[in-house]
Amino acid sequence: MAEAEKHDSSPNEHLALDPTIRDDASARLRSIRGHIDGILRMLERDDVYCVDALKQIKAVDGALAKVGDRVLRGHLKHHVVTAHERGDEDAIVDELMDVLKYR
Amino acid sequence: MAEAEKHDSSPNEHLALDPTIRDDASARLRSIRGHIDGILRMLERDDVYCVDALKQIKAVDGALAKVGDRVLRGHLKHHVVTAHERGDEDAIVDELMDVLKYR
Amino acid sequence: MAEAEKHDSSPNEHLALDPTIRDDASARLRSIRGHIDGILRMLERDDVYCVDALKQIKAVDGALAKVGDRVLRGHLKHHVVTAHERGDEDAIVDELMDVLKYR
Amino acid sequence: MAEAEKHDSSPNEHLALDPTIRDDASARLRSIRGHIDGILRMLERDDVYCVDALKQIKAVDGALAKVGDRVLRGHLKHHVVTAHERGDEDAIVDELMDVLKYR
Repeated sequence: MAEAEKHDSSPNEHLALDPTIRDDASARLRSIRGHIDGILRMLERDDVYCVDALKQIKAVDGALAKVGDRVLRGHLKHHVVTAHERGDEDAIVDELMDVLKYR
Repeated sequence: MAEAEKHDSSPNEHLALDPTIRDDASARLRSIRGHIDGILRMLERDDVYCVDALKQIKAVDGALAKVGDRVLRGHLKHHVVTAHERGDEDAIVDELMDVLKYR
Repeated sequence: MAEAEKHDSSPNEHLALDPTIRDDASARLRSIRGHIDGILRMLERDDVYCVDALKQIKAVDGALAKVGDRVLRGHLKHHVVTAHERGDEDAIVDELMDVLKYR
Repeated sequence: MAEAEKHDSSPNEHLALDPTIRDDASARLRSIRGHIDGILRMLERDDVYCVDALKQIKAVDGALAKVGDRVLRGHLKHHVVTAHERGDEDAIVDELMDVLKYR
Protein backbone atom coordinates (compact mmCIF):
# COMPACT_ATOMS: atom_id res chain seq x y z
CA MET A 1 0.00 0.00 0.00
CA ALA A 2 2.72 2.36 1.09
CA GLU A 3 4.61 1.09 -1.90
CA ALA A 4 1.76 2.05 -4.21
CA GLU A 5 1.77 5.62 -2.98
CA LYS A 6 5.46 6.38 -3.04
CA HIS A 7 6.64 8.25 -6.10
CA ASP A 8 9.08 6.12 -8.08
CA SER A 9 12.13 8.05 -9.23
CA SER A 10 11.41 7.46 -12.90
CA PRO A 11 13.56 9.19 -15.52
CA ASN A 12 10.29 10.22 -17.15
CA GLU A 13 8.35 11.90 -14.39
CA HIS A 14 7.06 14.55 -16.76
CA LEU A 15 5.23 11.92 -18.79
CA ALA A 16 1.84 11.73 -17.14
CA LEU A 17 -0.83 9.10 -17.68
CA ASP A 18 -3.55 10.39 -20.00
CA PRO A 19 -6.55 11.70 -17.94
CA THR A 20 -9.13 9.62 -19.88
CA ILE A 21 -7.15 6.43 -19.30
CA ARG A 22 -6.61 7.43 -15.67
CA ASP A 23 -10.37 7.75 -15.15
CA ASP A 24 -11.07 4.50 -16.94
CA ALA A 25 -8.40 2.69 -14.90
CA SER A 26 -9.83 4.11 -11.65
CA ALA A 27 -13.36 3.01 -12.53
CA ARG A 28 -12.14 -0.47 -13.39
CA LEU A 29 -10.08 -0.73 -10.19
CA ARG A 30 -13.08 0.34 -8.10
CA SER A 31 -15.11 -2.41 -9.79
CA ILE A 32 -12.29 -4.89 -9.07
CA ARG A 33 -12.28 -3.80 -5.42
CA GLY A 34 -16.01 -4.52 -5.33
CA HIS A 35 -15.39 -7.94 -6.87
CA ILE A 36 -12.78 -8.65 -4.16
CA ASP A 37 -15.31 -7.61 -1.50
CA GLY A 38 -17.65 -10.17 -3.04
CA ILE A 39 -14.98 -12.87 -2.76
CA LEU A 40 -14.32 -11.87 0.86
CA ARG A 41 -18.03 -12.31 1.66
CA MET A 42 -17.95 -15.63 -0.20
CA LEU A 43 -15.03 -16.75 1.98
CA GLU A 44 -17.00 -16.08 5.15
CA ARG A 45 -19.18 -19.08 4.35
CA ASP A 46 -18.10 -22.39 5.95
CA ASP A 47 -19.12 -24.33 2.87
CA VAL A 48 -17.44 -22.26 0.18
CA TYR A 49 -16.05 -24.53 -2.52
CA CYS A 50 -12.40 -24.13 -3.57
CA VAL A 51 -13.12 -24.09 -7.30
CA ASP A 52 -15.76 -21.36 -6.90
CA ALA A 53 -13.11 -19.25 -5.17
CA LEU A 54 -10.57 -20.06 -7.90
CA LYS A 55 -13.06 -19.01 -10.58
CA GLN A 56 -13.58 -15.63 -8.90
CA ILE A 57 -9.84 -15.08 -8.46
CA LYS A 58 -9.40 -15.86 -12.17
CA ALA A 59 -12.15 -13.35 -13.06
CA VAL A 60 -10.43 -10.65 -10.98
CA ASP A 61 -7.14 -11.52 -12.66
CA GLY A 62 -8.74 -11.06 -16.07
CA ALA A 63 -10.22 -7.70 -15.06
CA LEU A 64 -6.84 -6.59 -13.72
CA ALA A 65 -5.14 -7.62 -16.96
CA LYS A 66 -7.60 -5.40 -18.83
CA VAL A 67 -6.63 -2.39 -16.69
CA GLY A 68 -2.99 -3.16 -17.42
CA ASP A 69 -3.70 -3.42 -21.16
CA ARG A 70 -5.39 0.01 -21.20
CA VAL A 71 -2.57 1.70 -19.31
CA LEU A 72 0.02 -0.07 -21.46
CA ARG A 73 -1.72 0.99 -24.68
CA GLY A 74 -1.84 4.59 -23.44
CA HIS A 75 1.84 4.49 -22.51
CA LEU A 76 2.81 3.12 -25.91
CA LYS A 77 0.65 5.65 -27.76
CA HIS A 78 1.55 8.74 -25.74
CA HIS A 79 5.12 8.16 -24.57
CA VAL A 80 6.87 5.23 -26.21
CA VAL A 81 6.29 6.18 -29.87
CA THR A 82 7.81 9.61 -29.18
CA ALA A 83 10.78 8.43 -27.11
CA HIS A 84 13.33 8.84 -29.89
CA GLU A 85 12.30 12.46 -30.38
CA ARG A 86 12.76 13.12 -26.65
CA GLY A 87 15.99 11.10 -26.55
CA ASP A 88 15.01 8.91 -23.59
CA GLU A 89 14.40 5.73 -25.60
CA ASP A 90 16.89 3.57 -23.66
CA ALA A 91 15.23 4.33 -20.31
CA ILE A 92 11.74 3.96 -21.82
CA VAL A 93 12.51 0.55 -23.33
CA ASP A 94 14.35 -0.77 -20.25
CA GLU A 95 11.59 0.08 -17.82
CA LEU A 96 8.88 -1.18 -20.18
CA MET A 97 10.62 -4.53 -20.62
CA ASP A 98 10.89 -4.83 -16.82
CA VAL A 99 7.13 -4.49 -16.54
CA LEU A 100 6.29 -6.73 -19.49
CA LYS A 101 8.53 -9.64 -18.53
CA TYR A 102 6.49 -12.60 -17.29
CA ARG A 103 3.35 -10.49 -17.09
CA MET B 1 -19.65 -8.53 -7.66
CA ALA B 2 -23.07 -10.14 -7.85
CA GLU B 3 -21.34 -12.92 -9.72
CA ALA B 4 -18.88 -13.45 -6.87
CA GLU B 5 -21.67 -13.94 -4.37
CA LYS B 6 -23.92 -16.31 -6.24
CA HIS B 7 -23.48 -19.95 -5.33
CA ASP B 8 -22.23 -21.92 -8.33
CA SER B 9 -24.08 -25.17 -8.83
CA SER B 10 -20.96 -27.28 -8.47
CA PRO B 11 -21.26 -31.07 -8.41
CA ASN B 12 -19.05 -30.94 -5.31
CA GLU B 13 -20.78 -28.55 -2.99
CA HIS B 14 -20.04 -30.71 0.02
CA LEU B 15 -16.30 -30.20 -0.48
CA ALA B 16 -15.56 -27.08 1.52
CA LEU B 17 -12.43 -24.97 1.43
CA ASP B 18 -10.19 -25.74 4.43
CA PRO B 19 -10.74 -23.09 7.20
CA THR B 20 -7.01 -22.29 7.57
CA ILE B 21 -6.69 -21.66 3.84
CA ARG B 22 -9.92 -19.68 3.89
CA ASP B 23 -8.53 -17.39 6.61
CA ASP B 24 -5.21 -17.03 4.81
CA ALA B 25 -6.96 -16.23 1.51
CA SER B 26 -9.18 -13.64 3.23
CA ALA B 27 -6.19 -11.94 4.86
CA ARG B 28 -4.35 -11.84 1.54
CA LEU B 29 -7.39 -10.49 -0.31
CA ARG B 30 -7.85 -7.73 2.29
CA SER B 31 -4.20 -6.79 1.77
CA ILE B 32 -4.76 -6.79 -2.00
CA ARG B 33 -7.80 -4.53 -1.53
CA GLY B 34 -5.56 -2.15 0.43
CA HIS B 35 -3.01 -2.25 -2.38
CA ILE B 36 -5.76 -1.39 -4.88
CA ASP B 37 -6.82 1.54 -2.66
CA GLY B 38 -3.21 2.70 -2.86
CA ILE B 39 -3.28 2.54 -6.66
CA LEU B 40 -6.60 4.45 -6.69
CA ARG B 41 -4.99 7.23 -4.61
CA MET B 42 -1.98 7.14 -6.95
CA LEU B 43 -4.32 7.62 -9.92
CA GLU B 44 -5.82 10.77 -8.40
CA ARG B 45 -2.54 12.58 -9.08
CA ASP B 46 -2.37 14.49 -12.39
CA ASP B 47 1.26 13.56 -12.87
CA VAL B 48 1.09 9.82 -12.23
CA TYR B 49 3.42 7.99 -14.58
CA CYS B 50 2.04 5.06 -16.62
CA VAL B 51 4.86 2.69 -15.77
CA ASP B 52 4.47 3.34 -12.03
CA ALA B 53 0.82 2.31 -12.40
CA LEU B 54 1.81 -0.75 -14.45
CA LYS B 55 4.29 -1.79 -11.74
CA GLN B 56 1.60 -1.64 -9.07
CA ILE B 57 -0.88 -3.57 -11.21
CA LYS B 58 1.80 -6.21 -11.74
CA ALA B 59 2.42 -6.40 -7.97
CA VAL B 60 -1.30 -6.89 -7.31
CA ASP B 61 -1.38 -9.56 -10.01
CA GLY B 62 1.48 -11.40 -8.29
CA ALA B 63 -0.28 -11.20 -4.91
CA LEU B 64 -3.50 -12.48 -6.48
CA ALA B 65 -1.63 -15.39 -8.10
CA LYS B 66 -0.35 -16.33 -4.63
CA VAL B 67 -3.90 -16.49 -3.25
CA GLY B 68 -4.86 -18.68 -6.19
CA ASP B 69 -1.86 -20.95 -5.57
CA ARG B 70 -2.83 -21.44 -1.91
CA VAL B 71 -6.44 -22.25 -2.73
CA LEU B 72 -5.36 -24.54 -5.56
CA ARG B 73 -2.90 -26.40 -3.32
CA GLY B 74 -5.63 -26.86 -0.70
CA HIS B 75 -8.06 -28.12 -3.32
CA LEU B 76 -5.53 -30.63 -4.67
CA LYS B 77 -4.58 -31.82 -1.17
CA HIS B 78 -8.07 -32.06 0.32
CA HIS B 79 -10.33 -32.90 -2.60
CA VAL B 80 -8.54 -33.90 -5.80
CA VAL B 81 -6.32 -36.66 -4.37
CA THR B 82 -9.44 -38.36 -2.90
CA ALA B 83 -11.67 -37.96 -5.97
CA HIS B 84 -11.33 -41.57 -7.12
CA GLU B 85 -12.45 -42.81 -3.69
CA ARG B 86 -15.52 -40.57 -3.87
CA GLY B 87 -16.14 -41.44 -7.52
CA ASP B 88 -16.41 -37.84 -8.76
CA GLU B 89 -13.04 -37.74 -10.54
CA ASP B 90 -14.42 -36.80 -13.95
CA ALA B 91 -16.24 -33.72 -12.61
CA ILE B 92 -13.25 -32.79 -10.39
CA VAL B 93 -10.78 -32.96 -13.29
CA ASP B 94 -13.05 -31.16 -15.78
CA GLU B 95 -13.75 -28.20 -13.53
CA LEU B 96 -10.10 -27.97 -12.43
CA MET B 97 -8.86 -27.90 -16.03
CA ASP B 98 -11.37 -25.12 -16.79
CA VAL B 99 -9.82 -23.00 -14.05
CA LEU B 100 -6.21 -23.85 -14.86
CA LYS B 101 -6.41 -23.23 -18.60
CA TYR B 102 -4.50 -20.09 -19.58
CA ARG B 103 -4.21 -19.04 -15.98
CA MET C 1 18.52 -31.11 -24.34
CA ALA C 2 20.59 -33.37 -22.11
CA GLU C 3 18.28 -32.20 -19.36
CA ALA C 4 15.24 -33.40 -21.27
CA GLU C 5 16.64 -36.91 -21.53
CA LYS C 6 17.83 -37.49 -17.99
CA HIS C 7 15.45 -39.45 -15.81
CA ASP C 8 14.24 -37.30 -12.90
CA SER C 9 14.29 -39.14 -9.58
CA SER C 10 10.55 -38.74 -9.01
CA PRO C 11 8.93 -40.48 -6.07
CA ASN C 12 6.35 -41.74 -8.54
CA GLU C 13 8.36 -43.40 -11.26
CA HIS C 14 5.86 -46.23 -11.54
CA LEU C 15 3.17 -43.79 -12.67
CA ALA C 16 3.56 -43.73 -16.43
CA LEU C 17 2.01 -41.27 -18.86
CA ASP C 18 -1.01 -42.80 -20.58
CA PRO C 19 -0.01 -44.17 -24.05
CA THR C 20 -2.80 -42.32 -25.90
CA ILE C 21 -1.78 -39.00 -24.35
CA ARG C 22 1.88 -39.85 -25.02
CA ASP C 23 1.12 -40.36 -28.73
CA ASP C 24 -0.97 -37.20 -28.91
CA ALA C 25 1.76 -35.17 -27.16
CA SER C 26 4.40 -36.56 -29.53
CA ALA C 27 2.32 -35.69 -32.60
CA ARG C 28 1.75 -32.17 -31.29
CA LEU C 29 5.43 -31.68 -30.45
CA ARG C 30 6.45 -32.82 -33.94
CA SER C 31 4.03 -30.26 -35.37
CA ILE C 32 5.53 -27.61 -33.06
CA ARG C 33 9.01 -28.57 -34.25
CA GLY C 34 7.80 -28.03 -37.81
CA HIS C 35 6.40 -24.65 -36.84
CA ILE C 36 9.76 -23.70 -35.31
CA ASP C 37 11.49 -24.78 -38.55
CA GLY C 38 9.12 -22.40 -40.34
CA ILE C 39 10.13 -19.55 -38.02
CA LEU C 40 13.81 -20.38 -38.58
CA ARG C 41 13.31 -20.09 -42.35
CA MET C 42 11.38 -16.86 -41.78
CA LEU C 43 14.36 -15.50 -39.81
CA GLU C 44 16.72 -16.15 -42.72
CA ARG C 45 15.09 -13.30 -44.62
CA ASP C 46 16.77 -9.89 -44.27
CA ASP C 47 13.42 -8.13 -44.27
CA VAL C 48 11.57 -10.19 -41.68
CA TYR C 49 9.37 -7.96 -39.57
CA CYS C 50 9.61 -8.22 -35.74
CA VAL C 51 5.87 -8.44 -35.17
CA ASP C 52 5.52 -11.29 -37.70
CA ALA C 53 8.15 -13.18 -35.70
CA LEU C 54 6.38 -12.34 -32.42
CA LYS C 55 3.08 -13.64 -33.83
CA GLN C 56 4.66 -16.96 -34.76
CA ILE C 57 6.36 -17.28 -31.35
CA LYS C 58 2.99 -16.63 -29.73
CA ALA C 59 1.36 -19.31 -31.92
CA VAL C 60 4.03 -21.85 -30.90
CA ASP C 61 3.52 -20.87 -27.27
CA GLY C 62 -0.22 -21.53 -27.59
CA ALA C 63 0.42 -24.93 -29.21
CA LEU C 64 2.88 -25.81 -26.44
CA ALA C 65 0.35 -24.80 -23.78
CA LYS C 66 -2.11 -27.23 -25.37
CA VAL C 67 0.38 -30.10 -25.08
CA GLY C 68 0.89 -29.16 -21.44
CA ASP C 69 -2.88 -29.08 -20.85
CA ARG C 70 -3.30 -32.57 -22.30
CA VAL C 71 -0.48 -34.04 -20.22
CA LEU C 72 -1.74 -32.23 -17.11
CA ARG C 73 -5.28 -33.51 -17.64
CA GLY C 74 -3.97 -37.05 -18.03
CA HIS C 75 -1.86 -36.72 -14.89
CA LEU C 76 -4.82 -35.42 -12.87
CA LYS C 77 -7.14 -38.14 -14.19
CA HIS C 78 -4.78 -41.11 -13.91
CA HIS C 79 -2.52 -40.28 -10.98
CA VAL C 80 -3.62 -37.33 -8.87
CA VAL C 81 -7.21 -38.45 -8.15
CA THR C 82 -5.87 -41.78 -6.84
CA ALA C 83 -2.99 -40.35 -4.77
CA HIS C 84 -4.73 -40.74 -1.41
CA GLU C 85 -5.34 -44.42 -2.09
CA ARG C 86 -1.65 -44.90 -2.89
CA GLY C 87 -0.58 -42.72 0.04
CA ASP C 88 1.77 -40.46 -1.97
CA GLU C 89 -0.50 -37.39 -1.98
CA ASP C 90 2.06 -35.03 -0.38
CA ALA C 91 4.69 -35.75 -3.04
CA ILE C 92 2.08 -35.64 -5.83
CA VAL C 93 0.73 -32.25 -4.72
CA ASP C 94 4.17 -30.70 -4.09
CA GLU C 95 5.59 -31.62 -7.47
CA LEU C 96 2.40 -30.59 -9.25
CA MET C 97 2.38 -27.17 -7.59
CA ASP C 98 6.02 -26.70 -8.64
CA VAL C 99 5.05 -27.22 -12.26
CA LEU C 100 1.85 -25.16 -12.14
CA LYS C 101 3.33 -22.10 -10.44
CA TYR C 102 3.63 -19.20 -12.89
CA ARG C 103 2.88 -21.46 -15.81
CA MET D 1 4.35 -24.14 -40.78
CA ALA D 2 2.88 -22.73 -43.94
CA GLU D 3 1.53 -19.97 -41.75
CA ALA D 4 5.00 -19.23 -40.41
CA GLU D 5 6.40 -18.74 -43.87
CA LYS D 6 3.74 -16.60 -45.44
CA HIS D 7 4.50 -12.91 -45.46
CA ASP D 8 1.97 -11.02 -43.35
CA SER D 9 0.74 -7.87 -45.03
CA SER D 10 2.01 -5.58 -42.28
CA PRO D 11 1.79 -1.83 -42.74
CA ASN D 12 5.45 -1.75 -41.69
CA GLU D 13 7.15 -4.16 -44.04
CA HIS D 14 10.15 -1.90 -44.40
CA LEU D 15 10.92 -2.25 -40.68
CA ALA D 16 13.21 -5.26 -40.56
CA LEU D 17 14.28 -7.19 -37.49
CA ASP D 18 17.79 -6.20 -36.43
CA PRO D 19 20.37 -8.75 -37.78
CA THR D 20 21.99 -9.32 -34.37
CA ILE D 21 18.64 -10.09 -32.77
CA ARG D 22 17.70 -12.23 -35.77
CA ASP D 23 20.85 -14.35 -35.29
CA ASP D 24 20.29 -14.59 -31.54
CA ALA D 25 16.65 -15.61 -32.04
CA SER D 26 17.65 -18.25 -34.61
CA ALA D 27 20.29 -19.72 -32.29
CA ARG D 28 17.79 -19.86 -29.44
CA LEU D 29 15.10 -21.44 -31.63
CA ARG D 30 17.55 -24.11 -32.83
CA SER D 31 18.33 -24.88 -29.19
CA ILE D 32 14.58 -25.06 -28.44
CA ARG D 33 14.14 -27.44 -31.37
CA GLY D 34 16.86 -29.63 -29.84
CA HIS D 35 15.07 -29.49 -26.49
CA ILE D 36 11.84 -30.60 -28.20
CA ASP D 37 13.72 -33.49 -29.84
CA GLY D 38 14.81 -34.47 -26.32
CA ILE D 39 11.20 -34.46 -25.13
CA LEU D 40 10.17 -36.53 -28.15
CA ARG D 41 12.81 -39.16 -27.25
CA MET D 42 11.61 -38.99 -23.63
CA LEU D 43 8.06 -39.69 -24.81
CA GLU D 44 9.17 -42.86 -26.61
CA ARG D 45 9.72 -44.52 -23.23
CA ASP D 46 6.75 -46.54 -21.88
CA ASP D 47 7.48 -45.43 -18.34
CA VAL D 48 7.83 -41.69 -18.87
CA TYR D 49 6.31 -39.82 -15.94
CA CYS D 50 3.76 -37.05 -16.66
CA VAL D 51 5.40 -34.51 -14.37
CA ASP D 52 8.80 -35.02 -15.99
CA ALA D 53 7.17 -34.22 -19.35
CA LEU D 54 5.42 -31.17 -17.84
CA LYS D 55 8.74 -29.90 -16.45
CA GLN D 56 10.36 -30.12 -19.88
CA ILE D 57 7.40 -28.40 -21.56
CA LYS D 58 7.66 -25.63 -18.98
CA ALA D 59 11.40 -25.28 -19.66
CA VAL D 60 10.75 -24.95 -23.40
CA ASP D 61 8.04 -22.40 -22.68
CA GLY D 62 10.52 -20.34 -20.63
CA ALA D 63 13.12 -20.52 -23.42
CA LEU D 64 10.50 -19.46 -25.96
CA ALA D 65 9.45 -16.53 -23.78
CA LYS D 66 13.09 -15.38 -23.77
CA VAL D 67 13.19 -15.36 -27.59
CA GLY D 68 9.98 -13.34 -27.56
CA ASP D 69 11.45 -10.90 -25.04
CA ARG D 70 14.55 -10.32 -27.21
CA VAL D 71 12.52 -9.73 -30.36
CA LEU D 72 10.09 -7.49 -28.49
CA ARG D 73 12.93 -5.43 -27.00
CA GLY D 74 14.45 -5.02 -30.45
CA HIS D 75 11.10 -3.98 -31.91
CA LEU D 76 10.54 -1.41 -29.17
CA LYS D 77 14.07 -0.03 -29.49
CA HIS D 78 14.30 0.09 -33.28
CA HIS D 79 10.75 0.68 -34.46
CA VAL D 80 8.29 1.66 -31.75
CA VAL D 81 10.24 4.58 -30.25
CA THR D 82 10.48 6.15 -33.72
CA ALA D 83 6.87 5.53 -34.78
CA HIS D 84 5.71 9.11 -34.21
CA GLU D 85 8.48 10.42 -36.45
CA ARG D 86 7.42 8.01 -39.21
CA GLY D 87 3.72 8.71 -38.59
CA ASP D 88 2.65 5.05 -38.30
CA GLU D 89 2.13 5.06 -34.53
CA ASP D 90 -1.49 3.91 -34.64
CA ALA D 91 -0.67 0.81 -36.67
CA ILE D 92 2.45 0.12 -34.59
CA VAL D 93 0.55 0.32 -31.29
CA ASP D 94 -2.45 -1.71 -32.51
CA GLU D 95 -0.41 -4.61 -33.81
CA LEU D 96 1.86 -4.59 -30.76
CA MET D 97 -1.10 -4.73 -28.37
CA ASP D 98 -2.51 -7.67 -30.37
CA VAL D 99 0.69 -9.60 -29.77
CA LEU D 100 1.10 -8.59 -26.12
CA LYS D 101 -2.45 -9.39 -25.02
CA TYR D 102 -2.56 -12.50 -22.84
CA ARG D 103 1.00 -13.37 -23.70
